[in-house]
Amino acid sequence: MVKLVVIGGDAAGMSAAAQVTRGAEPVEMVVFERGEQTSYAACGLPYLVAGLVPGAGDLVARSPEEHRRRGVDVRTGHEVVAIDTDARTVTVVALGETFTESYDHLLIATGASPVRPPLPNLDAAGVHVIHTIPDAVAVDQLISGRSPRRAVVVGGGYIGLEMVEAFLLRGLEVSLVEKLPQPMATLDPDMGALVAASLVDQGVDLHLGTGVQGFEVDDSGHVTAVVTEAGVLPADVVVLGLGNRPNVDLARQAGVPIGPTGAIVTDARMATPVPGVWAAGDCAQSHHRVTGGPAWIALGTHANKQGRVVGLNVSGTPAEFPGVIGTAVTKVGPTEIGRTGLNEQEAAAAGFDAVSGTVKGTSRAHYYPDGASMTVKVVAERPTGRMLGAQIVGGPDAAKRIDALAVGVWNQMTVADFEQLDLGYAPPFSPVWDPTLVAARMAERARHA
Amino acid sequence: MVKLVVIGGDAAGMSAAAQVTRGAEPVEMVVFERGEQTSYAACGLPYLVAGLVPGAGDLVARSPEEHRRRGVDVRTGHEVVAIDTDARTVTVVALGETFTESYDHLLIATGASPVRPPLPNLDAAGVHVIHTIPDAVAVDQLISGRSPRRAVVVGGGYIGLEMVEAFLLRGLEVSLVEKLPQPMATLDPDMGALVAASLVDQGVDLHLGTGVQGFEVDDSGHVTAVVTEAGVLPADVVVLGLGNRPNVDLARQAGVPIGPTGAIVTDARMATPVPGVWAAGDCAQSHHRVTGGPAWIALGTHANKQGRVVGLNVSGTPAEFPGVIGTAVTKVGPTEIGRTGLNEQEAAAAGFDAVSGTVKGTSRAHYYPDGASMTVKVVAERPTGRMLGAQIVGGPDAAKRIDALAVGVWNQMTVADFEQLDLGYAPPFSPVWDPTLVAARMAERARHA
Repeated sequence: MVKLVVIGGDAAGMSAAAQVTRGAEPVEMVVFERGEQTSYAACGLPYLVAGLVPGAGDLVARSPEEHRRRGVDVRTGHEVVAIDTDARTVTVVALGETFTESYDHLLIATGASPVRPPLPNLDAAGVHVIHTIPDAVAVDQLISGRSPRRAVVVGGGYIGLEMVEAFLLRGLEVSLVEKLPQPMATLDPDMGALVAASLVDQGVDLHLGTGVQGFEVDDSGHVTAVVTEAGVLPADVVVLGLGNRPNVDLARQAGVPIGPTGAIVTDARMATPVPGVWAAGDCAQSHHRVTGGPAWIALGTHANKQGRVVGLNVSGTPAEFPGVIGTAVTKVGPTEIGRTGLNEQEAAAAGFDAVSGTVKGTSRAHYYPDGASMTVKVVAERPTGRMLGAQIVGGPDAAKRIDALAVGVWNQMTVADFEQLDLGYAPPFSPVWDPTLVAARMAERARHA
Repeated sequence: MVKLVVIGGDAAGMSAAAQVTRGAEPVEMVVFERGEQTSYAACGLPYLVAGLVPGAGDLVARSPEEHRRRGVDVRTGHEVVAIDTDARTVTVVALGETFTESYDHLLIATGASPVRPPLPNLDAAGVHVIHTIPDAVAVDQLISGRSPRRAVVVGGGYIGLEMVEAFLLRGLEVSLVEKLPQPMATLDPDMGALVAASLVDQGVDLHLGTGVQGFEVDDSGHVTAVVTEAGVLPADVVVLGLGNRPNVDLARQAGVPIGPTGAIVTDARMATPVPGVWAAGDCAQSHHRVTGGPAWIALGTHANKQGRVVGLNVSGTPAEFPGVIGTAVTKVGPTEIGRTGLNEQEAAAAGFDAVSGTVKGTSRAHYYPDGASMTVKVVAERPTGRMLGAQIVGGPDAAKRIDALAVGVWNQMTVADFEQLDLGYAPPFSPVWDPTLVAARMAERARHA
């Protein structure tokens, strides 16, 4: 019986392990997790702080005990500190002991860690990242315990916006500081401006194009202000949302190749170039189906799918991860955001001659109550009309409209074909011409302009 | 300058006319509409009765005057009574006068009419169809004026369910009578059963597998009951939702071929086999992309697209309508319904060896508040895995998920590929594995079972 060792007990690692228990061939398996939890929903952490999730336990999809009951030997508090890819062993530290475990297959699923730039007083009390359940619980308890009045969020990406929403829901005054001239850097500037306008509408004190230089603290060491290029912002609590970096030190030290994205090189099976070594989830590089190049997008959906692919391969069923197209959705207050594929800037960077079409439409027939407005932008290749990407910013029912566009991008549809699609229409759900179809038409027109 | 005559001033006809005004080549044009209105939203009529649409005028997308201001010569109260395809003329009756109008291009956009079976007292006061604005206004006024207590809806299709919702919203007791053993005949029985359960939950008095034999009336001739195979149902107001038939008498008499669906034969350009004669909208047959055969699906979206295609062709820009896949969405109370492609019965009838996968999932991450449950069914071809169709019944945010599945069906994706799609994920919008992806996986498993 072959033996699989998994490093990391979160989405990718546990998806692989769960799949192996159902596999075509029996596999001996052990999962080493350095923390105490498995399979927690990192994406849910802002909603725990917001008070929308009743308790931290609700974010644990499956506890170590539940995994064990299902036949997965998961050992928490076990840190893998070295990999020997020649001997096919890992060195594990647990409870002060160090031991060696052999493997036939090794899955590196070490995840990613939040970026923490070297700023003065970065480690002050009240300055947080939102990466683990203890991180979120700490902010929740800080809000409940200290009744802070002013929150500053540093970074206007997904986590940043979600934490803005969380603080607003908890009744705090919120400032958002972003170094770039727009929030949501994965959107084009025109679409990012719509997000910025929504933030201002929601009462957020917005500082774009503003770098952070450090933090001021009181005598107890608790943060009192964020020092920015544009002045000092008083702060009772600070959250950093500056993105993540893949955890690849262990892999690098073992000679497992790291790609240009900074994540571990994999093929379509999620195998690394080193025999017997696989990688999945937030530490793994994958393939971008639109650029054709490497991609690193740390998202729970990809981690789950990639882990499952490894589990299938290891247990005797050949499987491939087909790559990503960069689809993402989020919301901040009443404003929903969706994106897929390449934006105009990414398309240009990837060497595409791109055009775009943008339209403002509504979520429902104009006469049906409570329709929301939304702006949809579609990016297409000029010579062929091939859909390269799309972006949506709007009210309720806007974001998930990105899915139909994503399936179009995935299948390399042209905008002319997309416009003719047979999508679901009824007055409570869509105007006769859905804004996604009209945006595709506008992109088609732009090709000939 | 070529001359276009359009018969019918609703979605298809006016879309063609509007497109012609923007066309590459100048076209002389006249639209004959026998009624007094143009471009009204028939799909919105149930919502007018429901009280959700403020007034009938809100359902008129563009009045005859507005069309004229935009350069479309539309003549209301003008009925075309004959077509001479050799002479290329139509005979028009208006204001008691009869005259002849010549054409180079003729667009037949005569729409469809509701089925009215020959039942005793079908024409009684209080027995209505919901096809035109006056139809809906009459029911609205009946509810306001007579304060009826009991409504009976005959027919459990789209209009039937929407009228059930409308009557419930107006505070009436509602019975639904359907000859088939399930509501929503475009769904498989297992999915139709979910709709039936929702109707019962909403307090609807449901009579499935029950034919209607006639209507009882009082001395004034107003309906008092619906006589069914299973007994007499008291009724103060009755709506018939028994489907539509294409209006093809004029075309048939002129020798324009009628297809097996009962609608006018067209090619991909929406040209009929008769030179110079086009057809679009609810009177026109089109192409089903999954069966490869003829299709007749009377929906405003198709009418708009087909009309636009005719307008493009007539004004010098070659265009094709790529066909339909039978996507539709609706809702009844809190229950949303979506379908696309072929259901199992349709797949079998079309000669496919089909399998299906069904899953019950949720609209949001399990820990995020107010998620709704939904059941998703995916039908696939057994030998190839090609997606043939999908059905969804569930709570809020269920129905429009059909769009991603529709784009998959449109592109002939396999269920194995669909499962791996990069769709939008965030806790407020989806579980990590969206139910649509899981249903595709279940269909893939069923292929190998």
